[in-house]
Formats: sequence, C-alpha cells, structure tokens
Amino acid sequence: MELYFLGTGAGVPSTERNVSALALRLDKPHETWLFDCGEATQHQLLKSPLSPMKIRRVFITHLHGDHVFGLPGFLSSRSLQGDANHRVTVYGPTGIEEFLRHALRHTSTHVRYGFDIVEFDPTTLHTTHLYEDDHIAITFAPLRHGIPTVGFLIREKEHPGALDAEKLRALGVAPGPQYGELKRGIDVTLEDGRTLKPDDFRKPNTPGRRVAILGDTAPCKEAVALARDADVLVHESTFSARDAAHAHQHHHSTARDAAQTALAANAKRLILTHISPRYHERANDPADLPIQLLQEARSIFANTDLAYDHFHAVIPRIVPSASH
Amino acid sequence: MELYFLGTGAGVPSTERNVSALALRLDKPHETWLFDCGEATQHQLLKSPLSPMKIRRVFITHLHGDHVFGLPGFLSSRSLQGDANHRVTVYGPTGIEEFLRHALRHTSTHVRYGFDIVEFDPTTLHTTHLYEDDHIAITFAPLRHGIPTVGFLIREKEHPGALDAEKLRALGVAPGPQYGELKRGIDVTLEDGRTLKPDDFRKPNTPGRRVAILGDTAPCKEAVALARDADVLVHESTFSARDAAHAHQHHHSTARDAAQTALAANAKRLILTHISPRYHERANDPADLPIQLLQEARSIFANTDLAYDHFHAVIPRIVPSASH
Repeated sequence: MELYFLGTGAGVPSTERNVSALALRLDKPHETWLFDCGEATQHQLLKSPLSPMKIRRVFITHLHGDHVFGLPGFLSSRSLQGDANHRVTVYGPTGIEEFLRHALRHTSTHVRYGFDIVEFDPTTLHTTHLYEDDHIAITFAPLRHGIPTVGFLIREKEHPGALDAEKLRALGVAPGPQYGELKRGIDVTLEDGRTLKPDDFRKPNTPGRRVAILGDTAPCKEAVALARDADVLVHESTFSARDAAHAHQHHHSTARDAAQTALAANAKRLILTHISPRYHERANDPADLPIQLLQEARSIFANTDLAYDHFHAVIPRIVPSASH
Repeated sequence: MELYFLGTGAGVPSTERNVSALALRLDKPHETWLFDCGEATQHQLLKSPLSPMKIRRVFITHLHGDHVFGLPGFLSSRSLQGDANHRVTVYGPTGIEEFLRHALRHTSTHVRYGFDIVEFDPTTLHTTHLYEDDHIAITFAPLRHGIPTVGFLIREKEHPGALDAEKLRALGVAPGPQYGELKRGIDVTLEDGRTLKPDDFRKPNTPGRRVAILGDTAPCKEAVALARDADVLVHESTFSARDAAHAHQHHHSTARDAAQTALAANAKRLILTHISPRYHERANDPADLPIQLLQEARSIFANTDLAYDHFHAVIPRIVPSASH
C-alpha cells in the first residue's frame, strides 16, 4: 500500500503545486485508486511512475472545480491510450454523473472501456460500502465544507496469521497434508493420538491498515470519527494557524486543526495536503513558507509530513509480535 | 503582434507537448486573444510570460475535449487570481455555452468578472465579424473535420501613413497647427497662396496583417480561401505524409497537406502545430521524429516552422517603401 500525491495545492495550480489528486496503490486488489482529479492530473500521471491503466476506481470527495476538472480529460486520454478491457468506476457525490456525462457528451468524447458512475448521497450518516471485497472496503462520511463533501476510509481486512511451522516441527510434525488442514481450520489427529487445534498453530492475525483520506473540511468531530486509529490520515491544511479566521470562514482547516484532529483520532501518521498557494518556497514572509505549516502541525502531532507533488508514502503492514 | 504557442500536441498531452492552445498578443487593442484551451492551458500560462488578466477573448475552433477541457479551469482560476474588472468573452461553436455553463454550475464555480459567451453557427458560409474595432476584425469559416470546426481569420486594418514631415520642411512649412490639419485630411493654404493637399504629404498606408488560425481539418479549399495572402497561416499537421490515409480518415492533415494549402493560398509563412504524440524527440524510427514533419512541409513551402510548446513568433508589420 502506497500513497502517491499527484496534486497538493488548493484552489488554483501554481508553479509548485498542482490542484488535488492522490493515488493509492493497493496490493490486493492489484489496482490503483485515485482520490479527486483536479485539472492536469493526467499530466501529473505522465510525470509519475503510475500507470493510468491501473487506475480502476476514482473517488471524488466533492464537486469543486479544483477536485474534478481533470476527470473528463483523464477518462478521455485513458481511452485513447490503452486497451478497452480495463473498466473504470467513478464514485462521487450526487451531481458527479451529470457533470461527467455533460462534459463527455458536449465534446463528443467516447470512452471505449467500460465506464460506470456510482453516485452517493454525501450527506448521509448511514455507513455505505462503496466497494468491498475479501481484502478491502471503502466507506465515506460527511465532513464540513461549503458544499457537500466527504472523507473516505479505506479499511484493509485482517490478514490471517501464517501457520507456525517452527512450533509444528518442534512437535515432530513435518510439512505435509496436515499443514494444509490446519491452515484451513481443520483439527488434525496425529498417529500418536494427539489432536492439534488450528488456533494453537497459527501466528496472530495481522490487523488491516486503515487510511483516512479527507476532502476539504473545517475541523469537525466527523473528521475525528472517520480518522479513528487510522494508520495514515490525509488531511487538508489549506492555511496556517495565523490565518485561522480566514480558513474557518471558508470551511477549511489550518495545519494546527489537522494536527489536533490526528491527535484526537489517535491516528498513527498525519500527511498534510491541499496547501494554499499563499504558502510557497519563495515567500518573502517566513510565516508563508510551507515549512511553517509542517512545524505548526508537528508541535502538536509529531508524526506529520507535508506532502508535495510526487511525494509518496509507503504504508507498512504492522506484523504483531507473537503473543504465545 | 505575436503568436505564442501554449500547447502544440494533438489529442492527448505528452511529456513534450500539451494539448491545443495558442495566444495572439495584439498591439491594438492591447489584449491577448486565446485560440482553443485544452486541459492545463492555465498551467502552460504559469510557465509563460503571458498574463491571464490580459486574455480578454477566447476563440474556440471546435468542441473536442483536447481543445476545450481547460476552459472551465482557466476561467475559474482567473477569477480567483485577478481583479473583477477584466471581462472575458468566449466565442465558440454552438454548444460551447451549454458545455461551459454546465461545467461551472456543477462545480459551484462563480466567475467574478464579467463573462460573456458568444455562440456562432460553425457551418454558416455567411461572413460574420465576431469582433471588430477601428484596428482589427476577426471572422471565421467552416473547415472539414469530424465535427463542426472553424478556422479564424484575424485581419488588421490598414494603418494610415504618417505625415511626411521631411517633404513639408523642404517646402518651408515648419511643424505647427498646419501639420495637424493635414493629418486630419484638411487642405492647408499657406501665406504665399499655395494650397497643400493632405494626400501629397502622407506616407503610404501600411497594410494590415492577416493571421489565419485553423482548427483541426482535412485539407480543403475552405482552408485555402481562409488563408489567402495571410502573413501567417497556423495549420494543423497531425501526421506525416506517410500516414496520409490515417490522417484523412480521421479528418486531419499531414505536414504536406498544410504546406500545399499555404502554397495555394499564397501565404507568407506557415506554422505547423497539433502534432500527434506519435512524433516525438525520442522516437526510434527516424520517420517519427518531429523534424520529419518540418522537412516534409519545407520541401513544398520553404517558410515553414514547426511549433513547440512556448514557441513564439513575432509578426512584423511590413512598412511599404515610399512610392513617390
């Protein structure tokens, strides 16, 4: 599992940051998921190691232009470049279908691969699995922004512990069909009459990873709830605490807000993104340097990074130490 | 007058060329006009010396995505960046208004400056002045593409010749109010009784420049007619002559087609653009190097350039030598 930040700026592109897009590379299914698709996301993909063909699902947090204007072009170019077998499903708030269908129809764009749009009600409090398989599930929850906006929670399922071959060998049980039976959860009776219980020979399950990817939001308890115990929380940090009034007036968060949410949620790691172009590397006022946002957040939540375009972060699976 | 190429690729962006957009910087009015606005045109502007605020008119040749997907983002960002006084008018074929209004409405985008859309019938053979003032006029004509597509002709008006001060001084007429009268076309009677006719003391008029900017098109007589005697013809050159069958099947031109049109139209200069990503600098087959397109066109029409992103071309006003 790896997060790859394609666009980390807010509102308008700058020479330093493109508008919003974030890719999540999964192990199982072997797919890349895209979160938001601001203008020129396909251009950012060209400069990245990611393959547009691997992107099979696109999740949209809200319908502001800096989060969706790249969608028609991405879908269109992917159609001209690749084979027709790789379906794409776009999941987005009510209105995404009309936006996309209009953009494609008015421009006579024919998407040659299978292409589905799944609309959801971004205000519902009912937990909905947008996608779920044996390995992973994704849900969303409403946040607080000027228009209906959600955050997504990607939850990997528990990974069953491997068979403890060492322990079995110590009991004189050699690898063979009995190992398979124990793996499948079947009791095994040895020739000497001893019965082996599968649970006694399985290493502890590895907990699934939790990744919370939030759309634009003012600080709110919904964000804390969604990010509860997340391995990684991706949170907007449009402004610094100095500009908190302005941030909240526009339903955005400061770096401090994001850090407080991460702390309250007991998240393990925080990655800040959606940075206003006000903060940039050549700013005259040191308070407007991006590192200011990072330091502000780290003073509250140490394990924080400030994303930049093409920043990527591997999310390790934490294998618990044996408990018996 | 200067042409500035923002995007010179066809269909999809590549690492070498962005999709279509071309700026024309005018002296009078002191405006920049934009021709087509593919995705990430605003990003290309960020890397150029052009100011989005100076762009007051946008002309769209046709409604394919690679020519319009950058329009909502360009208009939206321009609203967030600049002052509200600089109106923009978008001129485009029937359908452009619905495309734009939908894109802006679905994304809750409020454009804060005055913003007009002028739709035209791209199939009409009736000459329409989309814009005209004392200095310049722009018309369009239908071309031949898969969907209704036009070319634009920008015609500068004749520049009245300056007063020939040298000739007046030789007659003993010193600079003063009489110069002003002659300039305004009024006969002047000197103290010695001689009468001066304004036409005898005006240098020859400078002819206005003609710039033809064509949308995607198969070679056609309409293109030749539109480009007649143009100082500069900007013509698509999606493919090379080797791929002529493919080009024509998709209603596109080869470099050879473009050169033949320039020759037939008696244009002074040809600039090729809208290059398929098939032709690129690292191509293995030398036939797929962009210079192949250039050489192919130059063998027919010598004064040809192959545009690349950020290529710019000043169009000089040709001052005629004195005829008397």
